[in-house]
Amino acid sequence: MQVAMIQDKIMPVEELGPAYLDRGVFFGDGVYEVVRSYNGRIFSLDEHIQRFARSLAAIEITGIEIDRVRRRVQKAFSAAGIENAKIYFHATRGSGLRSHVCDEGLAPNFFLTVTELEDKPEVKTNGIAVSTYPDLRWKRCDIKSLNLLPNVLARMDAEKKGCEEAVFVDDDGFITEGAASGFLAVFGDRLHTAPLTANILPSITRMFVIKAAGNIGMEVVEESFTAEQAGGADELFLAVTTKDIVPVVRFDDKTIREGRPGKYTRLLAEEFRSFI
Amino acid sequence: MQVAMIQDKIMPVEELGPAYLDRGVFFGDGVYEVVRSYNGRIFSLDEHIQRFARSLAAIEITGIEIDRVRRRVQKAFSAAGIENAKIYFHATRGSGLRSHVCDEGLAPNFFLTVTELEDKPEVKTNGIAVSTYPDLRWKRCDIKSLNLLPNVLARMDAEKKGCEEAVFVDDDGFITEGAASGFLAVFGDRLHTAPLTANILPSITRMFVIKAAGNIGMEVVEESFTAEQAGGADELFLAVTTKDIVPVVRFDDKTIREGRPGKYTRLLAEEFRSFI
Repeated sequence: MQVAMIQDKIMPVEELGPAYLDRGVFFGDGVYEVVRSYNGRIFSLDEHIQRFARSLAAIEITGIEIDRVRRRVQKAFSAAGIENAKIYFHATRGSGLRSHVCDEGLAPNFFLTVTELEDKPEVKTNGIAVSTYPDLRWKRCDIKSLNLLPNVLARMDAEKKGCEEAVFVDDDGFITEGAASGFLAVFGDRLHTAPLTANILPSITRMFVIKAAGNIGMEVVEESFTAEQAGGADELFLAVTTKDIVPVVRFDDKTIREGRPGKYTRLLAEEFRSFI
Repeated sequence: MQVAMIQDKIMPVEELGPAYLDRGVFFGDGVYEVVRSYNGRIFSLDEHIQRFARSLAAIEITGIEIDRVRRRVQKAFSAAGIENAKIYFHATRGSGLRSHVCDEGLAPNFFLTVTELEDKPEVKTNGIAVSTYPDLRWKRCDIKSLNLLPNVLARMDAEKKGCEEAVFVDDDGFITEGAASGFLAVFGDRLHTAPLTANILPSITRMFVIKAAGNIGMEVVEESFTAEQAGGADELFLAVTTKDIVPVVRFDDKTIREGRPGKYTRLLAEEFRSFI
């Protein structure tokens, strides 16, 4: 008899629920999105849905109708009735006994949660500390996949150092992005961020920040910069869906702007709010 | 109310079973092993258990007593009563609402299956075809983690090309290993395989193959070789727990040894059987 074991409990394989046989857990064979609402309205759902569709296509998960995903998100959000919500959803290639290759006809799994967004206003007022971590991730971080162990390890390391986020540094010393955020710097009056390559997620918040920069007449430089350069930046901040713009006031052992969020960060955050 | 959605079904988050909140699916935050039995006896369980312990330590999953894992494997294997079984097991950091960092006290999850090993004797007699694929994986492939999406993508690509396995080639053209196997070559009378680095899993079958080579008086060269060199090798084969030694007779568009498994591959496979 083919058997399964969950913790200490033995059972026939046939009795396993689909969640135990999900290719998401065996391989991280799936992609995800996180969206948020502001005061009862989901922000930039279209952009997230489009990126989700691109991620699905990139790993060749088929059989998911994207309009249906949109309707599911809206339906679950309505059911929850949470004004400021975090909506997480993922799709995996499906469930079955573990095998790298599966039948093309396998039905994908969809999973979603709508939870209260933990709002920490002091984070935006006071800024946060970040620490660097080697970018150990795979070479297609433009795909928002469930393979996130290096991100978890980086965040665990940051937490040990009393930091709220980890920033990835590649083998050549260049910053790619945060473990769960985009990373941006102000040098003088210009906004700097790494260009979008296969190593970087096309962050939607980053896109809105660049738009905000245009609106306030800031020049945007999409060029990689090093961790050393970041330590000497005039301002640093993160772009992240759940918190939009988060000032960074400590970068490893370097204090940025005497530990106070900078002028351009504040102006960009104000301009960002006009999009909401 | 915080809600979850599985396919189209909405429910309160509190009603989600632990498998839906497993950090394995959210992040691939776990490690695994595959062992097999030959005629009712598990092969090299100690080596696999030790590697499992090293993987757990490398990603700082604590709270798993390794002797208990061994007992669980043996108990489930006994319950299944399968002579030639494939035993898969993984542990994840635990279950909870999605958050990169979790409480240190979170209880890890353990999951295991014992299934019939699909024996394909023709594979060993006739050999298989393999295709190359860019090594997109993360930089700690010495850890046997659940982040296996690049391996899945490589195998899907191989299947499209009519190949049974994909072989990873790094940015410099060097072969690292197979998507789910070790990769070895015979040049002249010497056995070649890439050295164990952070990019390569310390394969237990590879270790036994190297031991077998010593027993039959073959010199072993642990040096990386390129895909181009592999195409001109005298013999090629894979080392994989579930099938031990598998001859490779086609490498991309190159036929190896006129499409027949080679002498040294056969001698090594015979010697390998003496360990069982």
